[in-house]
Amino acid sequence: MERKSFGHMQCPIARSLEHVGEWWSILILRDALYGLTRFDEFEKSLGIAPNMLTRRLKGLVESGLLERRKYNAHPPRYEYVLTEIGRDFRGVVLSLVAWGNKHFAPEGPSVLLKNIKTGKTAVPVLMDKVSGEEITAPGLFKVVAGPAADESIRKRMSAQRPSAL
Amino acid sequence: MERKSFGHMQCPIARSLEHVGEWWSILILRDALYGLTRFDEFEKSLGIAPNMLTRRLKGLVESGLLERRKYNAHPPRYEYVLTEIGRDFRGVVLSLVAWGNKHFAPEGPSVLLKNIKTGKTAVPVLMDKVSGEEITAPGLFKVVAGPAADESIRKRMSAQRPSAL
Repeated sequence: MERKSFGHMQCPIARSLEHVGEWWSILILRDALYGLTRFDEFEKSLGIAPNMLTRRLKGLVESGLLERRKYNAHPPRYEYVLTEIGRDFRGVVLSLVAWGNKHFAPEGPSVLLKNIKTGKTAVPVLMDKVSGEEITAPGLFKVVAGPAADESIRKRMSAQRPSAL
Repeated sequence: MERKSFGHMQCPIARSLEHVGEWWSILILRDALYGLTRFDEFEKSLGIAPNMLTRRLKGLVESGLLERRKYNAHPPRYEYVLTEIGRDFRGVVLSLVAWGNKHFAPEGPSVLLKNIKTGKTAVPVLMDKVSGEEITAPGLFKVVAGPAADESIRKRMSAQRPSAL
């Protein structure tokens, strides 16, 4: 398996990928966000081999995205519950929903987001809370090196073209 | 390599993952969003083996996220430019930046987003354009089956717990 560790890279994207680990992990997080907690629920939903599911769940627990909790003493039974880090992954999952709906759903969307109060279908956009502007609108925002950036990040940022992001 | 195809799943997240393909692909898209276009630029930025880079670039071109363009005739030289689908992946990449900065940057953020006009650091949040509310705030939104949902999606949605998403 050609999998390199990205954990040593300082880039926050590379680090995120290091923790989510693999496509299966993202689908497990998706199901956890939908409210699934038990091994057999994930297994059934994903059609994943049990040994693979065991490995992925273990990885997500070690990364601090899921917490393993005993919900039955005799026999001992465990469930997997999202931690705060895991719940915060919602933004990434919902961005994937929006992107998939827009470009890879020729038959129309199969998953939608609804405002519970109004019942209206939401249109998710990434906004800047400070200026109230749409972040993905071209030409309004740029990515810059943060205070903790190392040499490689600074180089990448200074090589940025004006057209970027 | 334990990689299953997710393309047959109707879930927009699974389909998105099918097209982005692999962690390397996400980092290539990140660099393309920063403005890199040439093979040697990606190679240097990522420290990736050339044969692996060739494979990933080919995959991204086949998925319609990058376009391969000749920029020099003699000798023939090609660059890789984001298509509209590829540029639209920004939302996912920036969500990963936000998540990585929040949870996996104990030394402080190494990458920030700035509003070009005001120079202020942006705080990215996923908002609903229709209601103007924060999508990731708990209890305001729920995911529902869309018009094109198949049986498996409908089942997953109806199994959703009230606490979900």
